[in-house]
Amino acid sequence: MNNSGTGDGVLDTGSVTDPDGLEFLADFGTLSAFGATERGGVERQAGSSSDVLQREWLRSWLRGHGFRVALDGIGNLYGIKEWTPGAPVVLTGSHLDSQPWGGRYDGAYGVLASAHAALRLDRQVAAGGPVPQYNVAVVDWFNEEGSRFAPSMMGSSVFTGKLALERALAIRDAHGTSVATALDDGAGRGDDTLPEVRAYAEIHVEQGRVLEDEGFTIGVVTSTWAARKFDVVVQGEQSHTGSTVMADRRDALVAAARLVVAVRALADERPDAALHTSVARFDVLPNSPVVVPREVAMNVDLRSPHASAIDEAVASLHDTIAAVEEEDGVRVTLTESHAWDRQPYHPGGVALASEVIDELELPYREIMTIAGHDSTNLKDMVPTVMLFVPSADGIAHNEAEYTTPEDCVHGVAVLTAVLQRLLAGADLGS
Amino acid sequence: MNNSGTGDGVLDTGSVTDPDGLEFLADFGTLSAFGATERGGVERQAGSSSDVLQREWLRSWLRGHGFRVALDGIGNLYGIKEWTPGAPVVLTGSHLDSQPWGGRYDGAYGVLASAHAALRLDRQVAAGGPVPQYNVAVVDWFNEEGSRFAPSMMGSSVFTGKLALERALAIRDAHGTSVATALDDGAGRGDDTLPEVRAYAEIHVEQGRVLEDEGFTIGVVTSTWAARKFDVVVQGEQSHTGSTVMADRRDALVAAARLVVAVRALADERPDAALHTSVARFDVLPNSPVVVPREVAMNVDLRSPHASAIDEAVASLHDTIAAVEEEDGVRVTLTESHAWDRQPYHPGGVALASEVIDELELPYREIMTIAGHDSTNLKDMVPTVMLFVPSADGIAHNEAEYTTPEDCVHGVAVLTAVLQRLLAGADLGS
Repeated sequence: MNNSGTGDGVLDTGSVTDPDGLEFLADFGTLSAFGATERGGVERQAGSSSDVLQREWLRSWLRGHGFRVALDGIGNLYGIKEWTPGAPVVLTGSHLDSQPWGGRYDGAYGVLASAHAALRLDRQVAAGGPVPQYNVAVVDWFNEEGSRFAPSMMGSSVFTGKLALERALAIRDAHGTSVATALDDGAGRGDDTLPEVRAYAEIHVEQGRVLEDEGFTIGVVTSTWAARKFDVVVQGEQSHTGSTVMADRRDALVAAARLVVAVRALADERPDAALHTSVARFDVLPNSPVVVPREVAMNVDLRSPHASAIDEAVASLHDTIAAVEEEDGVRVTLTESHAWDRQPYHPGGVALASEVIDELELPYREIMTIAGHDSTNLKDMVPTVMLFVPSADGIAHNEAEYTTPEDCVHGVAVLTAVLQRLLAGADLGS
Repeated sequence: MNNSGTGDGVLDTGSVTDPDGLEFLADFGTLSAFGATERGGVERQAGSSSDVLQREWLRSWLRGHGFRVALDGIGNLYGIKEWTPGAPVVLTGSHLDSQPWGGRYDGAYGVLASAHAALRLDRQVAAGGPVPQYNVAVVDWFNEEGSRFAPSMMGSSVFTGKLALERALAIRDAHGTSVATALDDGAGRGDDTLPEVRAYAEIHVEQGRVLEDEGFTIGVVTSTWAARKFDVVVQGEQSHTGSTVMADRRDALVAAARLVVAVRALADERPDAALHTSVARFDVLPNSPVVVPREVAMNVDLRSPHASAIDEAVASLHDTIAAVEEEDGVRVTLTESHAWDRQPYHPGGVALASEVIDELELPYREIMTIAGHDSTNLKDMVPTVMLFVPSADGIAHNEAEYTTPEDCVHGVAVLTAVLQRLLAGADLGS
């Protein structure tokens, strides 16, 4: 890992020549150096030293550009530009934290795009343009990724009242450090509150290959996929890997492995359902080379545009679990941790975004989001616009994640235009 | 966990009434309290605070009974009874360390049985019996289990020159603590060396169900099973569990799960081969709920009385690996970490043990050991006798591990008689 620059140290500006675009790319290069990995990604999980440093940098950037910096109780970091003291705000942002060995664009692009969009609008006001009806607040939502502290989307969940602050602060990472301690030891928390929020806008990398494959520059998100997530615990019995006769074993790892294979098969057996399935967290106890495992704790994640396809898959999974319990002499508990149907974004937001993108003459399409985003929380509280820029080869949660500088800069321009409308009081409906 | 006593606090003496037997059981009750778990087992991995405390207790016990305490460079702890200063020694012992949530008999029984056997012989000398030709040394081999610091049988491997001391000291646990640090921080190490070792004797719980099922009190070990062990790394590619299309995924966990299932099938498909197979250590990276795993590191352990059955199974495993690499787009590396054919113990040791057990009129049988033991190392250096006492239901590496007090006491009597012969210079052949 190094903090010396953006991988090869040469700023990737592509064919971008406009000063605003180059200013954005220069700042993005600086931001990408925090927690930079040798293979071009970043390692900055929530509250890690890299996260602390990049948040320090963002604070400096915001103060240096005339924003008032604020922190709430769960460590969401705000930069507020107050043209009209006390007026309601339009909120815009994303998250700076990353997955382990993550990409530099995921979340961080959106936070910096929001900051630059707000800065551009402020410069227009300073140059004599009309003063917007609302003020603007840029936000870095704390712990969107959820890799160190589960659940994901923590900061925006607390902000929108979906997760109690005290419960979130007590959550611990694998080493026993609580969110409260991580915040107090560096990432920071405060007791600031925002004025009334009138609307929210976020831009993010797609993390899929639809926009690239079809040649679009911008995606306007119309809804989420449906999803169901489970915590699974497989309980067997500890014994000696050498001397215990095979028939006596109740091997939790063998049973859990059968479930992992079955979860993959749920997708492979339904090629038309567009079902995405995964097991990604998998903890074995006691994890000693000569002890037959007594317990495996794992997650199961099922997503599809069709809730019915997920329900069918879950029914099939229950059958597999019953068979595995019988065959391997284990007990399996399946607890649903999340379940949602397809959730629409605000049609008024989709219409507004489409209008401004038309004016900018950029190729765009409507798109569903498969991944969860902070906007998934915010849309339930205020009118929300969610935008995507393309991800090269659809690569996400990987150091090789990439979005072209041209697409990055187009995205900032679109977000700026969307924000301008929102700040002027555009009505997105409810 | 508590250190207050032996589970229910009532000493389990069964039908034992002889004073020597009761004295042993009382000490075993005391020893079992170190790291005692609520379900009757012990948690005292090598160098843990429980291990440090029980070793302190053993030192006190040894000193209190007139043994000279010594420590070598890898933390093997010795108690030497010198009837003839400078004479060669007969060594006897086992290991006090346990697996996580382990049983109280595994290893600890053998160390205490050795100490009591040596004490009984010393009392005979003190009472005017003949002075043995050799001195006796009791040993607690450091880190036999290998759960915290791999490999297992570390102390006896260093002692027998199979593992270099400096290499062993540099090995780290999952938290980055080295063996050297663990020893210096409590378990202790020294620079003592033993006089010439003439023979070794060890007694251990069987960890299988042969003796119990067939009604024998003692097993005399004639050979090991054959075994091959592998370290396996499955390398895929990290991606987003939600948005990455299934066809683009190279999921290391799915591939590794197929291998775990295949390793189990190796045994199930060969019911006549007495093949024991397992995967017990299994580490997933990055182990984040929304990241398709890029890497799994796991072990594979294959054991059988027939080396040819293992070789056949390994060939089949290679075929499975090739298929999984193709199907899941992963790369699998398989590195052999241990391989041994059936290894005989000294026939002279088997004959000597059989003789003394006959004299004691106890039912015994010859038996193979499936598990590795410190005696597996020692037998390659000096004539060695290895004895088993029964394990109830064959339960091992589990808090429910149990050996009856009667069997425990019979075992100490047999070990005492074996040691007496060895100390008198009995020739076991080479």
